[in-house]
Amino acid sequence: MSISVDTFFLAPDAQGTLQAQIQQMVAEGILSGRFRKGEKLPSSRSLARHLGISRITVTLAYTELLANDYLTSKGRSGYYVSDTAPIPPSFTPAPRGADGVDWGAALVRHFSGGDTPRKPTEWQSYRYPFIYGQTDPALFDHSNWRLCATRALGQKDFTALTTDYYDGDDPLLVEFIARHSLPRRGIVARPEEILITLGAQNALWLAAQLLLTRNRRAAIEDPCYYAQRDILVQTGCAISPVRVDGDGLPSDRLPDDTDVIFTTPSHQAPTTATMPLDRRRALLARARALNALIVEDDYEFEMAFLRAPSPALKSLDEDGRVIYVGSFSKSLFPGLRLGYMVGSEPFIREARALRASVLRHPPGHVQRTAAYFLSLGHYDAQIRRMAQVLQQRRKVMETAIAEHGLTVAGRGAFGGSAFWMQAAQDRDTDALARDLRAEGVLIEPGAPFFHAAHRPQNFYRLAYSSIPATRIPEGIARIARHL
Amino acid sequence: MSISVDTFFLAPDAQGTLQAQIQQMVAEGILSGRFRKGEKLPSSRSLARHLGISRITVTLAYTELLANDYLTSKGRSGYYVSDTAPIPPSFTPAPRGADGVDWGAALVRHFSGGDTPRKPTEWQSYRYPFIYGQTDPALFDHSNWRLCATRALGQKDFTALTTDYYDGDDPLLVEFIARHSLPRRGIVARPEEILITLGAQNALWLAAQLLLTRNRRAAIEDPCYYAQRDILVQTGCAISPVRVDGDGLPSDRLPDDTDVIFTTPSHQAPTTATMPLDRRRALLARARALNALIVEDDYEFEMAFLRAPSPALKSLDEDGRVIYVGSFSKSLFPGLRLGYMVGSEPFIREARALRASVLRHPPGHVQRTAAYFLSLGHYDAQIRRMAQVLQQRRKVMETAIAEHGLTVAGRGAFGGSAFWMQAAQDRDTDALARDLRAEGVLIEPGAPFFHAAHRPQNFYRLAYSSIPATRIPEGIARIARHL
Repeated sequence: MSISVDTFFLAPDAQGTLQAQIQQMVAEGILSGRFRKGEKLPSSRSLARHLGISRITVTLAYTELLANDYLTSKGRSGYYVSDTAPIPPSFTPAPRGADGVDWGAALVRHFSGGDTPRKPTEWQSYRYPFIYGQTDPALFDHSNWRLCATRALGQKDFTALTTDYYDGDDPLLVEFIARHSLPRRGIVARPEEILITLGAQNALWLAAQLLLTRNRRAAIEDPCYYAQRDILVQTGCAISPVRVDGDGLPSDRLPDDTDVIFTTPSHQAPTTATMPLDRRRALLARARALNALIVEDDYEFEMAFLRAPSPALKSLDEDGRVIYVGSFSKSLFPGLRLGYMVGSEPFIREARALRASVLRHPPGHVQRTAAYFLSLGHYDAQIRRMAQVLQQRRKVMETAIAEHGLTVAGRGAFGGSAFWMQAAQDRDTDALARDLRAEGVLIEPGAPFFHAAHRPQNFYRLAYSSIPATRIPEGIARIARHL
Repeated sequence: MSISVDTFFLAPDAQGTLQAQIQQMVAEGILSGRFRKGEKLPSSRSLARHLGISRITVTLAYTELLANDYLTSKGRSGYYVSDTAPIPPSFTPAPRGADGVDWGAALVRHFSGGDTPRKPTEWQSYRYPFIYGQTDPALFDHSNWRLCATRALGQKDFTALTTDYYDGDDPLLVEFIARHSLPRRGIVARPEEILITLGAQNALWLAAQLLLTRNRRAAIEDPCYYAQRDILVQTGCAISPVRVDGDGLPSDRLPDDTDVIFTTPSHQAPTTATMPLDRRRALLARARALNALIVEDDYEFEMAFLRAPSPALKSLDEDGRVIYVGSFSKSLFPGLRLGYMVGSEPFIREARALRASVLRHPPGHVQRTAAYFLSLGHYDAQIRRMAQVLQQRRKVMETAIAEHGLTVAGRGAFGGSAFWMQAAQDRDTDALARDLRAEGVLIEPGAPFFHAAHRPQNFYRLAYSSIPATRIPEGIARIARHL
């Protein structure tokens, strides 16, 4: 029997090359049982004509399928579904009744319903996306990333790609971070004091598991990054939100029974405040007096284009009290899921054991690609280009914001990628965000950043990391019109 | 000032192309502050001569560095370190005293020191590696994986690569698993019932967090996969080890207060037993009577070359009682860190929220690459080739084992990649493994698989997934000599 040419069609929104699409159609036809063993495929000529594509494309796809044993070729008479084509078994599933499990009783812990808001995943379809933390295709050095990723797929890196590192990390990446990244933040660390994590969030989560329990107290900044607060809430510990001011976290407001302090000294999230040196020293002294630990989330220090960034809090830490968390999500891209933490050896040893239990290790290819991108200098070049563009966008933001009389609550002394904004006392920025969406404008309502007990509704965040400079004035104008 | 040509040398064990190495040397020289702004680089001619390589290689590296703004070119007079080269600040770290933190008191939970043994990472340097779960370069379709990974790095997949999916997954991979992978195991599931995880271990860990607490009881197979037991121990729940027999887990030995049953019905780890259909039905009935849930670890079902594998336990589950865990670690490679779990919607919703808090989502590139590899049919072709080679190796194993009179305790009815072996009662296979290492033979001692209360020392595992058939007879002979 012959397989009719009519069963083939090119989906208009299909991804990948034409050759890949044809290959996929044939493989799926065989694997799903629609095409049977011994059946003859359309000739390359007729399939090419039917699809309106070049014959060589079809021939290449068939050749590939031949190599994979899906097809056999019988000389000039054409291609057939191979007798030995991989056709895995498919079983008839049991009829499914209603779920017989009382999930309310079966689930011992609940994690849904935290403060972390749902964000639009299709932000690119908005014309004025003042969205934070997504990658602007115009800013990311995609081509060099691709080169590094391709290199990391090579034969020489086969082990780095495929191996089960058990509880270990890619030694190349760890070495680069120790020798190059950390010295720039004033930090000296040995490999045993460094752990690669699945993004900064994973590092913050690991630290919370190891340091907090029901009878410990965590101090967090208020406002702060909501996912950070959700992580702490899940540990069941006591939480003291401490109001930040224009200089970040004031150490004299920390409760006397604080065990762990979570802070963002370089660039407070979300107010963008930078903690001055004397306050950093005071914070370290206070932590020492309280015998408390500090978890420093050093996100976005790279985006310093107005002034050089200050060194990390960890660089002032003389007694191993600070656990440092770094991230590549903002400087590279969040889908990478790569970050790292630095701390004393006994801490990193336990964090490593916990990470091994939870997920073993971040994928090898991701680690090796980042190691190449960093060591070839692409990373620093990219940071530099990003900073230049962000600086230019920021100027446009400043001008438009001033022109329309909007109020900036925090702007970041070194740079950054967002403004922390304040509307009139009685404005609900959640409703504002909804209204603006209809006009193609994305802003981030500020309420989820605040501790639930007192949650002002009139703050919002405007990021300029994903919106082109040319669209900023009109975007700001639309926001102003609604306020 | 000129930078001397003598500061450049090619490391004999360096990885990557010559061009990349030169680029890296220059970038590192600049970023570390050794090469200063305005300094002149060696001419491409002199550097090429010094390193004994082609001049065009040096020129290409310099051109790349020019594009990245590390170098400027002053007409015919050569290349200079750019005035605007990205030179990030480096700070002087504080002098480090002894650690002032009492980590014994600060760490509220400990995860190190579990049953999971340390395994050799340099297993490839052993001539007779009967090691389990690592990737044999001869069996993995590296070139097609590379093609799929390269495709997933393309412009069309920019979003899939870079995006922050928040708590979501790559829809392409989820769809493929739902439409193609699960039907082969007799499972029907909607996307809301599927969660992509960082390997099967991550899925097992998530399930344990959601279903177990101090006042719940988990039943586990004895012997079982040690990392699975470590995960359960960490939850603090009561654990009942249930001795498996030649048909896997006997449901009549489950304690009456069991809340969750962890089992490997397709291919018991490590004994390789396959649970017959009637025992599966009995297990489901018993779980229903106990109102217990079942977590099914369906690892390695793909390696069925002697008989078709049985459908998954989940395919018989009519009331949503079974949580199914699948993995790509054995069929693709463990460094991928990709697996998935299937369960009722209320369960998957909480698992998704927990995963989001712990790590957000598995890296986008990894997910998209797997989606391509699966949908283009490479996955099935690879499984097929692997099964053929494993079948051949198994025959050689059987022959050598019989010839030397070694005792097989479990061999897997469908296939698999390892034998479960038994030495004389008084043999300590841990000592045996140590002795054999000195002779280039890697075996896996069996004790860590058993529950601590009664831990026989005389079992061991012999895998044939990473050792060439030609080396098996001599490897087995060496083992026999030591026994």
